[in-house]
Amino acid sequence: MIVVETIDKIREAVKGLQSEGKKVAFVPTMGALHNGHLSLFRLAKKHADEVVVSIYVNPEQFGPNEDFGNYPRNLERDLTFCKEEGISVVFTPSDEIMYGKGKKFLSIEIEELNDYLDGGSRPGYFQGIALVVNKLFNIVGPDVAVFGQKDYQQFQIIHQMVKEFNHDLELVMAPIERAEDGLALSSRNAYLSKEERELAPLMYNTMKKVVQEIQNGLLEPDSLLDKEQQQLETKGFKNDYLSVFSMNRMTPVSQLKKGETYLLAGAVYLGKTRLIDNIIFEC
Amino acid sequence: MIVVETIDKIREAVKGLQSEGKKVAFVPTMGALHNGHLSLFRLAKKHADEVVVSIYVNPEQFGPNEDFGNYPRNLERDLTFCKEEGISVVFTPSDEIMYGKGKKFLSIEIEELNDYLDGGSRPGYFQGIALVVNKLFNIVGPDVAVFGQKDYQQFQIIHQMVKEFNHDLELVMAPIERAEDGLALSSRNAYLSKEERELAPLMYNTMKKVVQEIQNGLLEPDSLLDKEQQQLETKGFKNDYLSVFSMNRMTPVSQLKKGETYLLAGAVYLGKTRLIDNIIFEC
Repeated sequence: MIVVETIDKIREAVKGLQSEGKKVAFVPTMGALHNGHLSLFRLAKKHADEVVVSIYVNPEQFGPNEDFGNYPRNLERDLTFCKEEGISVVFTPSDEIMYGKGKKFLSIEIEELNDYLDGGSRPGYFQGIALVVNKLFNIVGPDVAVFGQKDYQQFQIIHQMVKEFNHDLELVMAPIERAEDGLALSSRNAYLSKEERELAPLMYNTMKKVVQEIQNGLLEPDSLLDKEQQQLETKGFKNDYLSVFSMNRMTPVSQLKKGETYLLAGAVYLGKTRLIDNIIFEC
Repeated sequence: MIVVETIDKIREAVKGLQSEGKKVAFVPTMGALHNGHLSLFRLAKKHADEVVVSIYVNPEQFGPNEDFGNYPRNLERDLTFCKEEGISVVFTPSDEIMYGKGKKFLSIEIEELNDYLDGGSRPGYFQGIALVVNKLFNIVGPDVAVFGQKDYQQFQIIHQMVKEFNHDLELVMAPIERAEDGLALSSRNAYLSKEERELAPLMYNTMKKVVQEIQNGLLEPDSLLDKEQQQLETKGFKNDYLSVFSMNRMTPVSQLKKGETYLLAGAVYLGKTRLIDNIIFEC
């Protein structure tokens, strides 16, 4: 495994592999790697010969009151993790390498797709992600890129970007990896106190129950969703959103149709920790 | 020379050349080729082994009251021209291939660099150019791309995009090609009546005179520029702008500094035809 910090070196490494006829998959991460990332790496390996991982905490996707400063960072541990997983190249750029020193004049604007879910709650979040992923795609030049379903809205926006910007790669979505008690794995789970960690799986359990009710015939789930959110509040969660969304446009849907596929997605706070989760289901 | 219409085929052609170790230069055009394009092709050839040209009139960069419908198109003539110039591959995509049928959700926003000059006069113009050039870079994947100085603001915005989006290519600027009487070559010159064509070089002659005055020591040229614009109006021109701009930020400069490099740029109408021109000069 090689670890590179500069754009020239990551390009040299990836082009070197590709010139040997190797197919290269890319998994961008913000480090603080856990078993969720591991499942992405393994899926990446199924789609390619070599896997390249980037570790970069992108300041552009954090709001002024968000946890950029406190976001968990542990490069040495992450690199050990990558090595054990058979990653070929790890790209660990600095802010200066990613964004340079000068003023930025260009930005990527997103219509509609980021009006709700995390896009609605976190202004500038997906513009920041589109910006850095667009850069990383052009820097790394992979054949395949893997993102997790846990950030489904992110996947959908990047999917749209690949299409509209004509990035020359195949995009793959990895399923959500969960702890035994159902909690979706996340770097932010590290923030949870013991009590919060014990409470956390209730969110997913609630979401599974809602999907069950819908699949049993409840095609207007809004009042159930309201009731369940109230329940979560009484247990100690603070709700951000919990709704059914369309898969492509990422807009809330109140009246579901049999046979269609939807996304049930939620975001809550436990203390200061923000947790998100989702289920893709057929109605 | 091969002519291809689809994204798969242009990628196959360019990657084929590159896999033989050939360096590929790309010249995006809107067709209606003239000797100005020819000078771009020849410069491209100096920077690479093979030259790829795209011919595509991009609807996204025309305003609702601009000349998209009437823009000169003559593919057969253009292809003959390309063949004579030793172009290897010509990419002639349809609107559907470039933009698909579905709704577009993403756009590229530009700060400051497009506030003046053509960016100020033509809202959405450079967003449309950034959009299509970003797509073309990702579709074609060239090693070098060549743009003309005549659209200096376009060059500067694309230069900034290559930097901020990390496009993996070298950008080259070709000098302005002129008719014998000094008129900058442009596809839109074809719109000019005989009388307008005879009058047209006065714009460049005026600009040369202004640069001469500045280089003779006139460091606050605004009143001279006003006077010269009035002169042009009396001769039959309609002025859009004529100013000195900073080379990087594309903002007007009233107080020039000895030893600095600036852009004198102008846009006028002769009848319905819009003409632009510029001179890069050291003060």
